[in-house]
Amino acid sequence: MFKVPDHQVAGHMAGAGALGPLVDDSGHFYKPLQSGERGTHEVAFYTSFSTDTRVPDQIRKFFPAFHGTRDLEASDGSGMHPHLVLEDIVSSRINPSILDIKIGSSTWYPEASEAYISKCLEKDRETCSLTLGFRISGLQFYGSKETGFWKPDRKSVNSFTHDDVRSALRKFVSSNSPTNSDIEPDCSYASIIYGGPDGILAQLLELKSWFEDQTIFHFYSCSVMMVYDKESILKGENPNPQIKLVDFAHVTEGKGVIDHNFLGGLCSLIKFISDVVTDPNK
Amino acid sequence: MFKVPDHQVAGHMAGAGALGPLVDDSGHFYKPLQSGERGTHEVAFYTSFSTDTRVPDQIRKFFPAFHGTRDLEASDGSGMHPHLVLEDIVSSRINPSILDIKIGSSTWYPEASEAYISKCLEKDRETCSLTLGFRISGLQFYGSKETGFWKPDRKSVNSFTHDDVRSALRKFVSSNSPTNSDIEPDCSYASIIYGGPDGILAQLLELKSWFEDQTIFHFYSCSVMMVYDKESILKGENPNPQIKLVDFAHVTEGKGVIDHNFLGGLCSLIKFISDVVTDPNK
Repeated sequence: MFKVPDHQVAGHMAGAGALGPLVDDSGHFYKPLQSGERGTHEVAFYTSFSTDTRVPDQIRKFFPAFHGTRDLEASDGSGMHPHLVLEDIVSSRINPSILDIKIGSSTWYPEASEAYISKCLEKDRETCSLTLGFRISGLQFYGSKETGFWKPDRKSVNSFTHDDVRSALRKFVSSNSPTNSDIEPDCSYASIIYGGPDGILAQLLELKSWFEDQTIFHFYSCSVMMVYDKESILKGENPNPQIKLVDFAHVTEGKGVIDHNFLGGLCSLIKFISDVVTDPNK
Repeated sequence: MFKVPDHQVAGHMAGAGALGPLVDDSGHFYKPLQSGERGTHEVAFYTSFSTDTRVPDQIRKFFPAFHGTRDLEASDGSGMHPHLVLEDIVSSRINPSILDIKIGSSTWYPEASEAYISKCLEKDRETCSLTLGFRISGLQFYGSKETGFWKPDRKSVNSFTHDDVRSALRKFVSSNSPTNSDIEPDCSYASIIYGGPDGILAQLLELKSWFEDQTIFHFYSCSVMMVYDKESILKGENPNPQIKLVDFAHVTEGKGVIDHNFLGGLCSLIKFISDVVTDPNK
């Protein structure tokens, strides 16, 4: 009944003695509570967010639905472990292309311990976070039945340069093979996946408007996941491009101030994606 | 012919053996080149910016006009010293109210030396920069002929809390005495100074649009100055609210990425000011 997800691209992964998320066949995603404060923090966020009437419905749709917590047999065989019960974002998709982008030039929050700040700051400086305001933390791009997915390992993704990020954002919406680095991405799907009234750019802009105003939460170390179905395009069906925010173990109270760290990074990502839509042949 | 400016609120100030800016009576502001790279950096920025055709005219007006450099007798009596020749922003004003706000949660740039980063990061954490995305670095608010200016010293301004910042942004547009801390600021002038088609908010929003798109410059440790004439309101004249960007010793190349650090902080400031306009009685 519970199984390891087919399409996870970032975060702790279940398997061979490792604690990771599970899914069922009715569209639920079971995320094991992280140890210490992180787990309790994330439960507290979901609980508070899901009942906060200040969050508009058009923004709520960008977050996974939350169905409480549940004790389950852990994927690492260590016995019962509490899990968050969330919406499985990709359950209805066959071969989804996925980009997981951690937003914010800073992944640490001002009240964190010195040790935690140092560790995060070092990683923010090593990766693109500090300079771009976001970093790609995982991806899988579907090519075709023949080539399958392009899914570089975590180490490669962490060492992405600015050019690699730009290239990945182009490959994500290209019809040609993402696995072959000799082929220039054609960005054929930029206008239907990024562009248009229901495209990813429109969704990111809606999220941006909220972040310009909301002072309830600050989303440190949180990701925007972007998903669509490449095969649907070939079949003439709706590829259903969608964004979802995930990972809330480091959300803090806004205390009357906007989340300028998240907003700045989001605007940077929006600019990168706009560039692809405006000039797909560049 | 050259004299110490009447209305400087931040930065190095001339006087008693100290090197600081001078003004003349034809509207020029002479800023001594800072030592080492800072001075040459700031000249390079003004030179490059003033001839960059990618900068739209409606944005250029937010920067002081630049008239090259000139060797002048330094204010500290040390002999000839090169100065930037800039537009004197307040020369035409009698008793201007001024707010100098350093924008960005981070005042250091990624390529800076470790020593410089540590020093800035410490100050960003001690002041409001890190949490608000901006900090007030100087101010003078005109009260009346009787009370004159409220001009807290640098140390007091640096120790402003979130509440102090919110209060200062209210006092700036209030008719009642800024010097008396027992009087609740009335925000009577919020709608004419912050609001309206030519108000400070409209100008900040125009600047914001440019920052959402421009990838030419990153403005680390740069300030937005906000100025207007309170006495003009009483005389029924235009108080002429105006914003200007100042201090470009730490501008770096954008390299195709937006300045998400400045933009995030600017959006936070905009939200604070919008709150005053929307709810002046709060």
